[in-house]
Amino acid sequence: MKILIIGAAGMIGMRLAKSIVKDDFSGRINDITMFDVIPPKIERDKNSYKIKTGDISDPNIISDLISQKPDIIYNLAAIVSGDAEENFQKGWDINTKATWHLLEEVRKEFVASNGSYKPKFIYTSSLAVFSGPYPDAINDDFSPNPETSYGAQKLVGEILISEYSRKGYLDGIALRLPTIVVRPGKPNKAASSFYSSIIREPLNGFEAILPVSEDLCHWFASPQSAVGYLKHAAKLDFKKLGNKRSLNLPGVSCSIAEQILALEDIAGTKVSKLIKRIPDKKIENIVKNWPQSFIPDRAVQLGFSADKNFKEIIKLYINEEINT
Amino acid sequence: MKILIIGAAGMIGMRLAKSIVKDDFSGRINDITMFDVIPPKIERDKNSYKIKTGDISDPNIISDLISQKPDIIYNLAAIVSGDAEENFQKGWDINTKATWHLLEEVRKEFVASNGSYKPKFIYTSSLAVFSGPYPDAINDDFSPNPETSYGAQKLVGEILISEYSRKGYLDGIALRLPTIVVRPGKPNKAASSFYSSIIREPLNGFEAILPVSEDLCHWFASPQSAVGYLKHAAKLDFKKLGNKRSLNLPGVSCSIAEQILALEDIAGTKVSKLIKRIPDKKIENIVKNWPQSFIPDRAVQLGFSADKNFKEIIKLYINEEINT
Repeated sequence: MKILIIGAAGMIGMRLAKSIVKDDFSGRINDITMFDVIPPKIERDKNSYKIKTGDISDPNIISDLISQKPDIIYNLAAIVSGDAEENFQKGWDINTKATWHLLEEVRKEFVASNGSYKPKFIYTSSLAVFSGPYPDAINDDFSPNPETSYGAQKLVGEILISEYSRKGYLDGIALRLPTIVVRPGKPNKAASSFYSSIIREPLNGFEAILPVSEDLCHWFASPQSAVGYLKHAAKLDFKKLGNKRSLNLPGVSCSIAEQILALEDIAGTKVSKLIKRIPDKKIENIVKNWPQSFIPDRAVQLGFSADKNFKEIIKLYINEEINT
Repeated sequence: MKILIIGAAGMIGMRLAKSIVKDDFSGRINDITMFDVIPPKIERDKNSYKIKTGDISDPNIISDLISQKPDIIYNLAAIVSGDAEENFQKGWDINTKATWHLLEEVRKEFVASNGSYKPKFIYTSSLAVFSGPYPDAINDDFSPNPETSYGAQKLVGEILISEYSRKGYLDGIALRLPTIVVRPGKPNKAASSFYSSIIREPLNGFEAILPVSEDLCHWFASPQSAVGYLKHAAKLDFKKLGNKRSLNLPGVSCSIAEQILALEDIAGTKVSKLIKRIPDKKIENIVKNWPQSFIPDRAVQLGFSADKNFKEIIKLYINEEINT
């Protein structure tokens, strides 16, 4: 079985690749290609992967990737929300047009092979497809209405995946990931970046800035859960999806005050006091329109499972990034 | 004021152009360009229009059209549902990519003019963005989930229009037209084509085939109402739309049995007996998934208004197409 991971140098992409190699999908994997604009920083098990780099907005690159006929295609490549909002063209090129080129290239291979080539196409979408006003908890019927470029770009990707699946050219799924915390490393241009910083920086002895009010609630998953969703999708019987190919995923609903309390419980007030409240209206205006909680019945019925609570999410970060 | 009508050789496009010339938007119109792949069949008032022909999937053509800086752009051009389902690439090229090129070209002019060029962009979308199961009547919050290529293509167009509007590059609106009856002329490749045939053909003394069961309900508007929606949109204060740029429009909900009864009331049983029941499972399978009735509160509040009932729709056809 061949697996192609696009966006493999990202935090989730690298974890996914490592995790797939580790459990090997019951020994059926003989080829993993990791593709990104830069090479992934992988040292251990380096020979387990084919590493390719290039610009995903280049149709020739896509043609080359799909000509290898991967059985499972993960498309995790994305321009993050803040960047996509600032750089309109770049966001649409990478988040939507590159996805469309991938789907088109798969369709060409499907047609050329008389339908014998029909891969699984697993796409990371986002809660950003939604906007308020929200009900207390969002069920699977809540209608998307993006209010960011990133959200609009992901939603168009979802519709394309649904359509190419309905026509039978591939078997697609769009996973609307919760906000992933705790991200290791540096802050990025995502408006959600502070959600990781306020946990990560204090745990590493640094100050962190909280730019929004503490009563804001949001929907979270750990990087480990995100990898779990992506691997579960690869094993899923896609017939169960019918013509609804986009899934709201399970997660943990939690206010910032509760996050800070969880941090305090685990690491003490000395650590939690490193969070400095410096309001930033620009960020608050984005984040306050984000969904707070979901009732992701379909995904749960399909076997996707979430972290237990926010404390577990923090502990996973500590175990993996600090205690190693 | 300059108006560009794309898809102007179509039934709605021609009526729209004539109607705009007639009421002249209070004397403010000095330029109407009618664009289509074939020239519109217009005899009377021929000098009131600039006629242009070309392939809307050609970016150079789009560039030329938008370089004229029309104040109002109507994009009515479309590959109809049956054709789009059969010809995947053609449908996406015309129904989505051409729309996207138009929006991009407007954005370029917006940027080049430092924001002084910002037209209204009025797009005909469709009920085909929806699929069942439906509630008894569909309200404005019901989530789109297309199950046809045509529906998916229109939905992507909607999202793009909403996004370009939100970014301030243009002022867009997507009008989800009811099924338009009674269409004059010949049947076309739309699965909805019989909805016009069963009224039009008998009134002209010909037999018509009813391929589906009589208890099916659907959502209708006359060509005159469609033109009314399009003209109302041009006059609308788009600020009232906020970030919800797609509108379910008012219409008439009516079963086929009720349609036939209305025809009988107006023209007698001699006429209605010309309808022959010849079931076609392929058409029934498409049509049975169509919405039956809407509660289009937003559009009504914004001043869009529908035909009174199905009898009125038939009478409009008779007055305009038979009694002239």
